[in-house]
Amino acid sequence: MAVRRASRGIVYLVGAGPGDPRLITVAGLDAIRSSDVIVYDRLVNRALLREAPEQAERIPVGKRPVGHAVAQAAIDAILIDRSRTGLTVTRLKGGDPFVFGRGGEECQALEAAGVPYAVIPGVTSAVAVPGLAGIPVTHRRYSSAFAVVTGHQCKDPSAVDWDALARIPTLIVLMGLATLSRTARRLMAAGVPGSRPAAVVASGTLPNERVVTGTLETIGRQARDASIEAPAVLIVGEVVRLRAILRSLRRTPDVECTNPGREPIPAGRVPA
Amino acid sequence: MAVRRASRGIVYLVGAGPGDPRLITVAGLDAIRSSDVIVYDRLVNRALLREAPEQAERIPVGKRPVGHAVAQAAIDAILIDRSRTGLTVTRLKGGDPFVFGRGGEECQALEAAGVPYAVIPGVTSAVAVPGLAGIPVTHRRYSSAFAVVTGHQCKDPSAVDWDALARIPTLIVLMGLATLSRTARRLMAAGVPGSRPAAVVASGTLPNERVVTGTLETIGRQARDASIEAPAVLIVGEVVRLRAILRSLRRTPDVECTNPGREPIPAGRVPA
Repeated sequence: MAVRRASRGIVYLVGAGPGDPRLITVAGLDAIRSSDVIVYDRLVNRALLREAPEQAERIPVGKRPVGHAVAQAAIDAILIDRSRTGLTVTRLKGGDPFVFGRGGEECQALEAAGVPYAVIPGVTSAVAVPGLAGIPVTHRRYSSAFAVVTGHQCKDPSAVDWDALARIPTLIVLMGLATLSRTARRLMAAGVPGSRPAAVVASGTLPNERVVTGTLETIGRQARDASIEAPAVLIVGEVVRLRAILRSLRRTPDVECTNPGREPIPAGRVPA
Repeated sequence: MAVRRASRGIVYLVGAGPGDPRLITVAGLDAIRSSDVIVYDRLVNRALLREAPEQAERIPVGKRPVGHAVAQAAIDAILIDRSRTGLTVTRLKGGDPFVFGRGGEECQALEAAGVPYAVIPGVTSAVAVPGLAGIPVTHRRYSSAFAVVTGHQCKDPSAVDWDALARIPTLIVLMGLATLSRTARRLMAAGVPGSRPAAVVASGTLPNERVVTGTLETIGRQARDASIEAPAVLIVGEVVRLRAILRSLRRTPDVECTNPGREPIPAGRVPA
């Protein structure tokens, strides 16, 4: 197999996108197909791993909400060691590498080690998961700005200014399920009306996507009642109302042309 | 040419990504290659238009900062009319369709007209342009949240709560060049120190990318002195400091394997 090979090793930090494997970038898919080693996080779609050369080494290093994960220093060591032996390494992360993905820290480690690296951005879940659930993060009528934070920040109130976040028209909380009710209470304490529309999207962009819509006051209970499971994105803002209007967006169009946003990526597929 | 053709027309709202044509998604490129009509904005990379079938109709509707642009109602009419004749239409927008792209409004128009449509998210400039300039929008040490707004909002102080935006660790202002100094003054009036690091990235992710870094107090003058031209993204926050550390990120790696993030997309290219 004529994999283009680096004369020196290199690490590509690649954003795998929000879940649907066909939402990876052309450059990102090319990096995977050119790599000797794929170091991947837990939420990366397995269809993308199958795009790597057959003999490529595949190393899972994903963090789980509970359980063992490979420490960051160990991940850095894998990237540095493999690339130093001349291998082309793709570090595959869910969403975009620089949106709560520790991509910056990994770049710093590679920089310090003198390893060549490049970043290939990805489609961030913060925008695409709401969007494919019929919730545009901005809209001329409903929202002229949006902010993105993680649910983890809710555990450490000093880390983030929730009073400021409460005043942004669209707030997106990634990894927000475990702290969902706490986040809602925190925002209401900061003056957000309990009646503000809110939605939780689980497994967004994937065939098993689940969406719950309600209000800031009710969304925590609703998510529990519906047994929503991680990964999930919380959206708070008037834009959530658009989901009721954009009904067709969630329907696979009844046409021969398959919906590019919803189907798995076929290996080596070339449009005719 | 065996273009897969819909038995009924359909409109794909596709995010073209931040500039570099290889940062479009696999699904987005597939939609372009399958389309009879491409309706595109001004900032969409011409290399992507070349990926459409030779006989495809290409319709520019881009808005310019100054000058004539096709009105939104006229764009909606083009999408609806073409798809109703059974054609497959790709509506190609810079970045992501739902990040200040009026994608929501276009979906509403298609929904009201009963036209089948699907959304294919894109890599947003808000994340990728800073990222490929060596500025991660989040970082465990420097920033636990980010907010995105457009410079236009600075003209209408009632539209956006700048006092709240001033308290978000990383602020990204799209289309922010014309109002750069005004935005900086507004943020300083809201209590952001003039010494906070700031950067302007023009033509981000493209070969002619230009980056100016300074502080909130100096960035307006610096951008003028450097004759920075639109399109440009303003980033305000401590994360701007990382650009000085992540020096190699901006260097095309000295390896045979070409840098996937930086080269133009070859037509119909299939990785071996």
